[in-house]
Parts: sequence; C-alpha cells; structure tokens
Amino acid sequence: MGRTAGRPDALLTEIDHVAIAVHDIEGAVEWYAETFGATVTHRELVERDGVEEALIRVADSYVQLVTPTRSDSPVAKFLETRGEGLHHVAYRVESCAAAMDAVRANGWKLVDEMPRPGSRRTTVAFVHPKSSFGTLVELVEEGEGDGADGVRAGSG
Amino acid sequence: MGRTAGRPDALLTEIDHVAIAVHDIEGAVEWYAETFGATVTHRELVERDGVEEALIRVADSYVQLVTPTRSDSPVAKFLETRGEGLHHVAYRVESCAAAMDAVRANGWKLVDEMPRPGSRRTTVAFVHPKSSFGTLVELVEEGEGDGADGVRAGSG
Repeated sequence: MGRTAGRPDALLTEIDHVAIAVHDIEGAVEWYAETFGATVTHRELVERDGVEEALIRVADSYVQLVTPTRSDSPVAKFLETRGEGLHHVAYRVESCAAAMDAVRANGWKLVDEMPRPGSRRTTVAFVHPKSSFGTLVELVEEGEGDGADGVRAGSG
Repeated sequence: MGRTAGRPDALLTEIDHVAIAVHDIEGAVEWYAETFGATVTHRELVERDGVEEALIRVADSYVQLVTPTRSDSPVAKFLETRGEGLHHVAYRVESCAAAMDAVRANGWKLVDEMPRPGSRRTTVAFVHPKSSFGTLVELVEEGEGDGADGVRAGSG
C-alpha cells in the first residue's frame, strides 16, 4: 500500500457489518423479517467466540445479530453489563494484516495480535475500543469465493 | 408496497450510517484519516438535535461521527451515561413514511411521530430502542439530488 504525505490509502472498502447483541436471536430475526422484510442469508455458531450469529444482508453489508452460547463469551458479559444493543462495527478491508499494520503504525492498540478466522471464512482482527473512541472496531477481510455467493451458499 | 403472506417487501436498501458519539470530533476525524485514510465528505451542525456531525464515506454508507453542541442534546446525555461509542444505526429506505408504517403495523414504537428533516437534506425518523432490541434505529430517506453527489457537493 503506497502512502502519500503520511496518509494511508483508503483502507475501508465497505461497512461489512453492524453487530447487535441480543438475548433472543430468533425474536430479533423475526423482528427484522416481519417489520422490514429483511431476511437472514447466513447463520453460524462461532465456537471460538462463544456466539451464534445470524446475518441479514442489506445491500453489500450485513446486520449481524449475535447472541452468546456460553456464559464466558464476551457477548454474554456485554449483555450483562450494557444490555442489548450495538456491540461493534466491522469495516471490510482488502488485507486484514495491512489494516492491522496501519493501526499499529499510528500507535493504536489491537485486541488481536494476529489476523484470525472469523465467521463465513473471513479473516478478522479487533481494534481495542480504547484506541477507537469507545467503539469496538473489527477489520474484516473476505476469503476466496467469499462475500455474496459464499454467504448465500452457506445459508440454510 | 405490495405484501406477500404478511411479510413486507425488503424495505432496507443500505446501511446508511453508523453513528459514533465522541467527545472530541476533530480527534476522531483525524484518527480515521491517519489510520485508515478515511476522510470526511460532509460536515453539518444539526441545530434541532444539538449536534455537530462529520460524515466519512465508506462505499455507499457513512461513518457518522457526532458530538453534542449543547448540554441538553440527547448525545450529551448519552456520553454522560454510556461514554463514547456506538450511538445508533441508520438504515436507508425508499420512503421514510412507508417504513414508519411498517414499524407501526407490527405494533412497534417510534420516537418520532412524523418523518422529519435530518442532515444533508434527508428525511428521517427514529424507532424506539425498546422496540428494536436495545438498538436506536434510524430510518433515512435521501432527498432529491442527494446521496453521493449531494454529499460531495456539501463537503468543504
């Protein structure tokens, strides 16, 4: 990635998703379907993070409804202390590693030391909310054959 | 809007923006620019809501950095009680009034009784977070000649 006058190229290519933590994921899925005709295109149990997620496609982005599957999940702790609501925002990037480098180069803190697997064959890393104005920011790199088709193929 | 089997047509056409409440809007603007090369395409003082906002364009969506301009602004209260972070998610719709009807038809509560002017010549309404799983949801209808070109024309 070339740089000009200390400014990086535009690294964010899309709002990949907005994550909403809920107690009742079936209720939330139903709410989006009944109210807005917005339906789930992908569901996944993400063991590593202790969550179940339902992705609702909106144009090239997703609303990610997320609920904990065990009590030590970070999302369980979030629900306990903050209640239901916006959990994080994820920006799509071409290279998760390059975006992480950009965060580090500016002296900001990451939650993940290395890029790691996310849901739907993505590679992800989280920026520490203390670095990013109280907002948990995820960097998402889509995998080969991922994105729209990959997600649709993955839906039930 | 036609309906089939009680389900509305897909009403959400885009994640219009993700709003992030911050104390220091200049610092946040700088953070996005220096870290991700993501720059502001529109700024506005929204007197009615007592906020200043900076819109960073990401594909067809925006990151909306927002800070209060007076102590009785809802965003000032949010910062007091929750601190900096994700404030609301806005979905773009073709018709704000029709989307409001869909919310009401499903028995859910709106913050706004009528569509009202938003920033950058949009028409907006907020869904009550108690209806939408703890999440403040905004419905955004773009104005004539609005969207990409309108926003770019509005940038300094």
